[in-house]
Amino acid sequence: MILTVTLNTALDLTYRVPALTPHTTHRVTQVIERPGGKGLNVARVLASLGYETVATGFAGGATGSVLRERLAEHSAVRDELVETAGPTRRTVAVADTASGDTTRLDEPGPTVTPAEWAAFRTRFTELLYGATAVALCGSLPPGIHVGAYAELVRLARAAAVPVLLDTSGEPLRRGIAARPDLVKPNAEELARLTGSRDPLRATREARGRGARTVVSSLGPEGLLAAGPDGLWRATPPAAVRGNPTGAGDSVVAALLSGLADGTPWPERLARAVALSAATVLSPVAGEFDPTAYEELLPRVKVIAEPESA
Amino acid sequence: MILTVTLNTALDLTYRVPALTPHTTHRVTQVIERPGGKGLNVARVLASLGYETVATGFAGGATGSVLRERLAEHSAVRDELVETAGPTRRTVAVADTASGDTTRLDEPGPTVTPAEWAAFRTRFTELLYGATAVALCGSLPPGIHVGAYAELVRLARAAAVPVLLDTSGEPLRRGIAARPDLVKPNAEELARLTGSRDPLRATREARGRGARTVVSSLGPEGLLAAGPDGLWRATPPAAVRGNPTGAGDSVVAALLSGLADGTPWPERLARAVALSAATVLSPVAGEFDPTAYEELLPRVKVIAEPESA
Repeated sequence: MILTVTLNTALDLTYRVPALTPHTTHRVTQVIERPGGKGLNVARVLASLGYETVATGFAGGATGSVLRERLAEHSAVRDELVETAGPTRRTVAVADTASGDTTRLDEPGPTVTPAEWAAFRTRFTELLYGATAVALCGSLPPGIHVGAYAELVRLARAAAVPVLLDTSGEPLRRGIAARPDLVKPNAEELARLTGSRDPLRATREARGRGARTVVSSLGPEGLLAAGPDGLWRATPPAAVRGNPTGAGDSVVAALLSGLADGTPWPERLARAVALSAATVLSPVAGEFDPTAYEELLPRVKVIAEPESA
Repeated sequence: MILTVTLNTALDLTYRVPALTPHTTHRVTQVIERPGGKGLNVARVLASLGYETVATGFAGGATGSVLRERLAEHSAVRDELVETAGPTRRTVAVADTASGDTTRLDEPGPTVTPAEWAAFRTRFTELLYGATAVALCGSLPPGIHVGAYAELVRLARAAAVPVLLDTSGEPLRRGIAARPDLVKPNAEELARLTGSRDPLRATREARGRGARTVVSSLGPEGLLAAGPDGLWRATPPAAVRGNPTGAGDSVVAALLSGLADGTPWPERLARAVALSAATVLSPVAGEFDPTAYEELLPRVKVIAEPESA
């Protein structure tokens, strides 16, 4: 079983409007309601790929109930979310029909109490016993201490479960020092962590902070991986056009399944790049096109970079 | 008991952001969740004034449950809403902290089924037996025929319950022909109904379409009433500054209580103008400042207009 953690889940609403004009009234033409938060997205992709997947984290209130209903309806993910007294936050993405551009409004979410955090840690520790890999994903909700991911990385390592960390800012900085097996920063997170905008240099520098392997996602240029086996670069066969929502979560899903299966690195990276591109190509945000995935997979270029570069 | 009808209820969300900038991501700093829809606002004001008040209309799904919880928590209004299978719509008002300007996003809401409409008509007819006045407020949800308000006006008249209609467009045009006791258009609705932008002429013309009395709300200029007793104009003592949200609903609440109590028209109009101004002055949108109301009431100017004007 593969486990994903989403401490700051959200009920994601997408509102379609002809065009967003500040300080006017808009009739929303379409409303889409989806369970959101990086770890839930990763879990859905893994379940679509046929992996037995469990999602934990927090959910509460009326919005939490809707999130759990939607998760149950649309995926085979097992729901092990821990109940909070406060209601799960909403995010609203206003999509302009004309331009295709999106405006985001993110609610702050409820403050998690010390008792709820303790209940989560117990649930997490129990779930680790059956897990072949675990991913810790996204931002921390109010009330949770900034070293929370470091604490969860140590629990996973103590249980000998390979652990992937996908977050940003101070939680990433603290978490990486607890020596996770894998971190997956994007170019922006990498620059904030290391102070360097040179991807190769920053990826190596991030690894020096404690992660066994660092896989940097460089958008349309693919992935750059630095680990004990050396440096690898994986690039898609061609630039793909579409909706990049969820592409990063698909990279995490592919890398996490690779951690669980012990797949060789070049194949792991090829899967991650192909799955990410197949997600961009899907007409539904956050889902992937299985035909495109199969077609792209053999065409991803993975090359070893010289260590001295 | 006073009855209000809200067929298109909404869970009203207010999101505070520093400033709304299209095509960027915003962290919402404050979320306020309120039961919404004109008739529910009118009912809350009446309950605050001490009237026994009952609200009916539709609510459904998780958003409907939250709406009903909030209504029960914050008011003495008796909840007689009829359950729909589809979830109650949300409206999102994004309030810029910097400018004070608001951007609205209104969900369309669920389609009401013929069975749900029949269930509502039965409930409405039952509730009419104990009512001293009834208000029919706001837009029609998808699935409800455009002559719905005309149908409800006829049911109220058959039960000899004075009926106030506050809507716009074709539902107002159809509803007014069924001879309600009172309609309360604003300047915009009046112009759309009659084609005239002259308030005096348009108010008389609207009355000619079937309403016993027409009270036109002219914003800061107050109210203009045309009825069997003649023409009246009611103006606030001075221009008030504040949040106009809910001012129109306070006018309806005052006029409706006047219908129920049989208050003489000059006093009825004075109450409506004072309550509306006290609502603009309240720091909380949609609520009124009771001290300001008492202070303003004796200072509203109500004059009879010559019939020949």
